[in-house]
Amino acid sequence: MALKLYDLAAEREEVRFSPHCWRVRMALAHKALEVECVPWRFTEKGAIAFSGQDKVPVLVDGDSAIADSWAIANHLEDAYPDRPPLFAGPAGRGEALFVKNWCERVVQPAIAGMIVADIHNILTADDQAYFRTSREQRFGRALEEVSADRESKLPEFHKAIEPLRVTVAANPFIGGQAPLFSDYIVFSAFQWARLCSAFELLNAEDPVHAWRDRMLGLFDGLGAKAPSAAA
Amino acid sequence: MALKLYDLAAEREEVRFSPHCWRVRMALAHKALEVECVPWRFTEKGAIAFSGQDKVPVLVDGDSAIADSWAIANHLEDAYPDRPPLFAGPAGRGEALFVKNWCERVVQPAIAGMIVADIHNILTADDQAYFRTSREQRFGRALEEVSADRESKLPEFHKAIEPLRVTVAANPFIGGQAPLFSDYIVFSAFQWARLCSAFELLNAEDPVHAWRDRMLGLFDGLGAKAPSAAA
Repeated sequence: MALKLYDLAAEREEVRFSPHCWRVRMALAHKALEVECVPWRFTEKGAIAFSGQDKVPVLVDGDSAIADSWAIANHLEDAYPDRPPLFAGPAGRGEALFVKNWCERVVQPAIAGMIVADIHNILTADDQAYFRTSREQRFGRALEEVSADRESKLPEFHKAIEPLRVTVAANPFIGGQAPLFSDYIVFSAFQWARLCSAFELLNAEDPVHAWRDRMLGLFDGLGAKAPSAAA
Repeated sequence: MALKLYDLAAEREEVRFSPHCWRVRMALAHKALEVECVPWRFTEKGAIAFSGQDKVPVLVDGDSAIADSWAIANHLEDAYPDRPPLFAGPAGRGEALFVKNWCERVVQPAIAGMIVADIHNILTADDQAYFRTSREQRFGRALEEVSADRESKLPEFHKAIEPLRVTVAANPFIGGQAPLFSDYIVFSAFQWARLCSAFELLNAEDPVHAWRDRMLGLFDGLGAKAPSAAA
């Protein structure tokens, strides 16, 4: 039975922009596993109720339904040990978790602060209402205010990603000579921004830009070919 | 032939406070390798000139002299493959490098900003002159000004180490169930502060505090037993 992934979609159904779903798309490609991606929208809570929670990604693998991108990556590693490894061995899962936590505490909030109004604009009407209410509650102000004057936030963002910059200036990937799940975690945050927003986060000469290009080209250009909602 | 480590010393010779030397001390203990630690001071450039550069740590292993803690850890991993591994396999070196870069770009500068005047005060007179000149050039102002009002810097520091906090709240170590070189890298920054300064960086209830305690207890309390210059 083919794997099935519930994958967040924009109003244009072919635009799949969720950073957490992208982690799983890249992990599945890394393991050369075929997957059926089912478009899902924020307000379609009923469609994934079988998973016992209300967020994507949800991966259906035979009789199992797994939610949460980290849990899914661990499932894939355990269930498909004969495929290319996503982690640097058992001990590597610990360090990948550090990269995940850095990405979620530093990179993703900074990117969200610059593109959140763009995300709103690509959603269906129902999702727009849900997104505005939930995110304005989180940020404590209007989405348009959050991402206003975003150019001024770039210097701080560029400073915040310095640990990534020096890492991918020294090696092609966070994983060293080849990408690991830790690369997919951080790449997916940048892919999220690329697909939702025309706002460019990176200078052309930034080593992170070159790393993002390497990531976009993996798996026959899986990331590069993804339909974008950005103008 | 026993390994020999040139190890930065305070005026009180038994106080060995360098974060980069601590990385090596912990890595040697991890591999259960005996080492002779030779006290060295900032101004004793001649004593390590044989290494082709002027900074410690310098590890002498047979005919080899290796400088730089990252190079030393890689040397130990390659030269002593039958001993417990410092990295999660070859791919794990990449992710450990990310942790190193995060520590050096985020953690160490923040700690330096709070303890730099204390470091100065524990040095020999010759080292004090060297340290003041070189560090005031780096910071662009007097050491005492840099670390003045340091209590006010703690909230930002605590926010900056959030990726570490959530990681060591989920697992005992960055390396997961057991420590890896990435743990020694970050621990050594905290050990540096502990041995130079009475200023407490961490709240007792912080999961990072509990992790630091676990690190201090490793190898029969190697870190905990280290002589401190702090009051």
